[in-house]
Amino acid sequence: MAGNSIGQLFRLTTFGESHGPAIGGVIDGCPPGLELNMERVQSELDRRKPGQSSITTQRKESDTVKILSGVFEGKTLGSPIGFIIENSDAKSKDYDHLKDVYRPSHADFTYDAKYGVRDHRGGGRSSARETACRVVAGAVARQYLEKFGIDVWGYVSSVGEIELNANYQSIDKTQIHSSIVRCPDKEVADRMIQFIEEIRKQGDTVGGTVSCVIQGLPAGIGEPVFDKLNADLAKAMVSINAVKAFELGSGVSASRMLGSDHNDQFSALGKTLSNNSGGIQGGISNGEDITMKVTFKPVATIMRDQDTINSKGEEMVATGKGRHDPCVVPRAVPIVEAMCLLTIADHYLRQKAIG
Amino acid sequence: MAGNSIGQLFRLTTFGESHGPAIGGVIDGCPPGLELNMERVQSELDRRKPGQSSITTQRKESDTVKILSGVFEGKTLGSPIGFIIENSDAKSKDYDHLKDVYRPSHADFTYDAKYGVRDHRGGGRSSARETACRVVAGAVARQYLEKFGIDVWGYVSSVGEIELNANYQSIDKTQIHSSIVRCPDKEVADRMIQFIEEIRKQGDTVGGTVSCVIQGLPAGIGEPVFDKLNADLAKAMVSINAVKAFELGSGVSASRMLGSDHNDQFSALGKTLSNNSGGIQGGISNGEDITMKVTFKPVATIMRDQDTINSKGEEMVATGKGRHDPCVVPRAVPIVEAMCLLTIADHYLRQKAIG
Amino acid sequence: MAGNSIGQLFRLTTFGESHGPAIGGVIDGCPPGLELNMERVQSELDRRKPGQSSITTQRKESDTVKILSGVFEGKTLGSPIGFIIENSDAKSKDYDHLKDVYRPSHADFTYDAKYGVRDHRGGGRSSARETACRVVAGAVARQYLEKFGIDVWGYVSSVGEIELNANYQSIDKTQIHSSIVRCPDKEVADRMIQFIEEIRKQGDTVGGTVSCVIQGLPAGIGEPVFDKLNADLAKAMVSINAVKAFELGSGVSASRMLGSDHNDQFSALGKTLSNNSGGIQGGISNGEDITMKVTFKPVATIMRDQDTINSKGEEMVATGKGRHDPCVVPRAVPIVEAMCLLTIADHYLRQKAIG
Amino acid sequence: MAGNSIGQLFRLTTFGESHGPAIGGVIDGCPPGLELNMERVQSELDRRKPGQSSITTQRKESDTVKILSGVFEGKTLGSPIGFIIENSDAKSKDYDHLKDVYRPSHADFTYDAKYGVRDHRGGGRSSARETACRVVAGAVARQYLEKFGIDVWGYVSSVGEIELNANYQSIDKTQIHSSIVRCPDKEVADRMIQFIEEIRKQGDTVGGTVSCVIQGLPAGIGEPVFDKLNADLAKAMVSINAVKAFELGSGVSASRMLGSDHNDQFSALGKTLSNNSGGIQGGISNGEDITMKVTFKPVATIMRDQDTINSKGEEMVATGKGRHDPCVVPRAVPIVEAMCLLTIADHYLRQKAIG
Repeated sequence: MAGNSIGQLFRLTTFGESHGPAIGGVIDGCPPGLELNMERVQSELDRRKPGQSSITTQRKESDTVKILSGVFEGKTLGSPIGFIIENSDAKSKDYDHLKDVYRPSHADFTYDAKYGVRDHRGGGRSSARETACRVVAGAVARQYLEKFGIDVWGYVSSVGEIELNANYQSIDKTQIHSSIVRCPDKEVADRMIQFIEEIRKQGDTVGGTVSCVIQGLPAGIGEPVFDKLNADLAKAMVSINAVKAFELGSGVSASRMLGSDHNDQFSALGKTLSNNSGGIQGGISNGEDITMKVTFKPVATIMRDQDTINSKGEEMVATGKGRHDPCVVPRAVPIVEAMCLLTIADHYLRQKAIG
Repeated sequence: MAGNSIGQLFRLTTFGESHGPAIGGVIDGCPPGLELNMERVQSELDRRKPGQSSITTQRKESDTVKILSGVFEGKTLGSPIGFIIENSDAKSKDYDHLKDVYRPSHADFTYDAKYGVRDHRGGGRSSARETACRVVAGAVARQYLEKFGIDVWGYVSSVGEIELNANYQSIDKTQIHSSIVRCPDKEVADRMIQFIEEIRKQGDTVGGTVSCVIQGLPAGIGEPVFDKLNADLAKAMVSINAVKAFELGSGVSASRMLGSDHNDQFSALGKTLSNNSGGIQGGISNGEDITMKVTFKPVATIMRDQDTINSKGEEMVATGKGRHDPCVVPRAVPIVEAMCLLTIADHYLRQKAIG
Repeated sequence: MAGNSIGQLFRLTTFGESHGPAIGGVIDGCPPGLELNMERVQSELDRRKPGQSSITTQRKESDTVKILSGVFEGKTLGSPIGFIIENSDAKSKDYDHLKDVYRPSHADFTYDAKYGVRDHRGGGRSSARETACRVVAGAVARQYLEKFGIDVWGYVSSVGEIELNANYQSIDKTQIHSSIVRCPDKEVADRMIQFIEEIRKQGDTVGGTVSCVIQGLPAGIGEPVFDKLNADLAKAMVSINAVKAFELGSGVSASRMLGSDHNDQFSALGKTLSNNSGGIQGGISNGEDITMKVTFKPVATIMRDQDTINSKGEEMVATGKGRHDPCVVPRAVPIVEAMCLLTIADHYLRQKAIG
Repeated sequence: MAGNSIGQLFRLTTFGESHGPAIGGVIDGCPPGLELNMERVQSELDRRKPGQSSITTQRKESDTVKILSGVFEGKTLGSPIGFIIENSDAKSKDYDHLKDVYRPSHADFTYDAKYGVRDHRGGGRSSARETACRVVAGAVARQYLEKFGIDVWGYVSSVGEIELNANYQSIDKTQIHSSIVRCPDKEVADRMIQFIEEIRKQGDTVGGTVSCVIQGLPAGIGEPVFDKLNADLAKAMVSINAVKAFELGSGVSASRMLGSDHNDQFSALGKTLSNNSGGIQGGISNGEDITMKVTFKPVATIMRDQDTINSKGEEMVATGKGRHDPCVVPRAVPIVEAMCLLTIADHYLRQKAIG
């Protein structure tokens, strides 16, 4: 239980360091007989890949997923789906000067504290490159779930102080990916892009939020007590690199509300007048849309000198090199969606077992 | 994997409905040879119990924990610690009128959707009464962890709009439990209490937040990727009834920050000048204090009539009866602490296995 | 993962020492809406209880199971079924002289080696008394499985050198429990009983075998690779105290056979002319009866003096005291059945999840 | 939990079909800082590979393992070790005639019954080719365990009626691999080889047994109750293709023994005069050698015509084609060892967590 797997029945295990030969994963528990459209899987992966626009890192990875097992003549077999993504543009030399340096707010120090040994190249296992494997698995889960009319979609709802003030129900989903910042409102998106470009010029980075919606999930999915659907979503989201907060439905604003305002009164079976619950009650879906918001911190790698220490405790200056994103949220949208899809697929199968 | 267990190596399984003969749990994996002070366990449970003050529910449960196994001559055996808490003041008759009614923002509807059968008395399995078992297990974990100098403590940091504006480092821990609202600042605490009493008179409820700090945890605890220490803390917190948000360190404010402000620069090995990371980097503890904030929604049971439906989909009026808390956060403090303690004990053992 | 749970979806966790206040368990994952006949559960437990006949231990335990949760108005809720069995006839004084003695072929020494602390009274956690909880859970699983026409039944097939030479298909199931030794052939049973009584008089014990049959399980149940249905049955059986061997279908005789004799040729879909496979191929049920044989060693407690050592490594003589079975197999029949039932229920639910 | 993983803390997940692009696996939980000798890993894999001698299948696979992650500059990182073995000599055409045929005593029918879809080429996922991944992982576990003086070695103890009548203590380990049949007694080995060659000429196959010994394991390893060390060994062994029986220590002979003969009396702390227990008492190692015996059935593929059916239930004749072993036990020795090594490594880490 070294923490590289997630899910009980629809289960993903990932492996791989950022600058090793390849990263990859194993999806165990995908039901058999699913016609798998690999072009669509690759297309979701392309939405996460580096170098895709002027506001992402310039590392160029083709990020081509190669399926090694579990699929035969276009259909899933029910056996584990093994896959790899080769690391082609790993410029390991860029990291030679960091071999013994602990970059501020990176995992360099904590990995050494835990393991006593570390692949320093590109962050090694702690690199967000690992999330590419999550996107692959999420894309498989999506094709399973959409057979039941379940859809998951996310978008950037804030970058720094720039927020999208729109209810998700008013959003035109088709506009999300027409913007490189993945905000569906063109005017707000343009401001976000401009701000990110300014920040990049300053050698700095900025945080933001991704909002995500699950639609079409029937009532009755989720487990009580510890494996509440919201608890598993929280874990899935906070397991993404750089996430600092998870909110369901009313989120942090719930602390300031009264019960008479917060309660979602029923209008019909499985239909409520409001949705402060965010689609989950007692850990179980109620048939309403599930809504959540995920906060990402600014990327830790900045193109500025920072005071730090090395592995001997000596004071150093960490100089910003390498290729990194000035703001992570545009590329985080497919990752957030993937983690939702994996969580929902898992709970969907769990309910089938007892239903 | 029906969701009634948490933890891999230090593992708690709970059982029990609010109005059944008893609730209880099994702690599996507590190391052997630990001298267990049962009075201290009971004392932590007393901090959660109903009827303890004017601002909590008036249900009177002695909430006496009875250990059935795993402890011999005052020491843990390494075998599972089974325990029960009898339900003595269950006024099941109070719930007769709710047998077929779906109370707004409760789990009545979702349990029926999932299981097709339900113990309607006092919320059955969905009742927060289940969390008493978490407090017992957390109190055992605490006695194990404090051998290594690890401490966990929480406090109420807001009720409605009333916030405690104080850094946790300035708090006098001994004052937390001297107030029935569990806010360590007497002036703020008094305002909170007054507000809760007003809200109660109106038959309403209000939300709030609990902040929690983990101190003394060495660097190197936590797993990378999916079982990040923060991810498991997020799950643990969001699995508590009524929680709507989880924040680590800088939390939701991180989305508005720049990397140059957010990064925690090192001052020495394992020491940083700031702690926006909240003590965790790359999913692994860095030796700084771990800080988090948990948002609770207002309790769903209000003493007012609300429009709702019954199990046939017929419109009804739900009338507020039963005994409930006007604000859940004072009693939530020991629960938040317990979930931290369980998570830390689990990850501590996981690190021992490979260390 | 301290080893006190079994099953993934239909999961039993047990707790309790032989001479503590109670033993008990939690069944998590039993599907909701099952009408549970508690008299039948108790009746299965009675078949395992001590003191039931002249050839079992004379410890008198009423072994009354008390359900604490998960059942409401006679039906399972889908929530965990917690239960306890109180220890009423624990004569702990009988064990005072054994406090520091390591009885030969008992777990006294190994528990001390593992935990450094031990409840010496009646074997503590290592006592076969724990298996009473397995019988309770198996009895619940049985009521779930028989809705689908699945039946599990075992019988004593040998005691010492005395073997029942009869194909299971020729057995009259109703005769198994009419004999205190649980062998369905009266003549063989009488010889077994006589032999056990002689052995008891000599202060000695003897081994034996239990055969078990699973009928009505459809084809397609089980997992490939590691969680093969036979692998999980092997684990379930070998986890029972005193078991030394597990055989499926042709068992140990398969090593001496040729493929042309051993292969089970098909006569129709899901029907084979022979059943050397024992109903499982590639880890998955083929629709034929599943047949297995489980070997039990002679009980380690004998009423004779044996050379041994104490916890300081000093040589001692262990004198036989306490109340123990001269031969464990008659009481092992319900335990073997229970472990089959738990394994089958678990795999049945696992298949439902993907089916 | 689709059954493609084994182990709790030292955990192997495998993937891959016999005729797909590659098979592979992920080892999660291998402690960091282990110097990994990859030549030795490959060398263990070579002992399992097909085409290595006249008495094995003539399929020629180079079976070269390629590590993709988790190892850096020759040392394990503590992160998951992903690896693949490409399928190079897959003659899929040989299986075209079997597309809809259910071969007797193969998993063709049961996979169809379970999944409704199947990769018929070379047995797909049910092929013993999967066990190559177990050997890789076992070889990694071996290098970890030998740091603590723990050794595991197996040998062929019978082929058909030909048995090696020698106590394992009298065996010269170095002779095991000098014989292609992996029996350490040259005279017996020669008879076995001759017999296998005769059987092969007849187009038939034969069963056999592998014995295995674990040495150097300290007392105190293993868990009580369900995850007994012997129970996990039983599962590990019975999960190997073609295994029909598992015996520990005295094995099936225990059923015919008296307690006064079977009990292992202590001679000193952790030393016993006999070892009928096979090194495990109450599920926990006692410091003696752990001894077990595993029975393999004759390989199901025979070079003879057999009556069978196809997926429509029509009667067919299955004709023997493809390349298969006349007797599986010589190649099974490294697989049995690997499953022991994985089980021991897992329990060793589990004990470290609480020790």
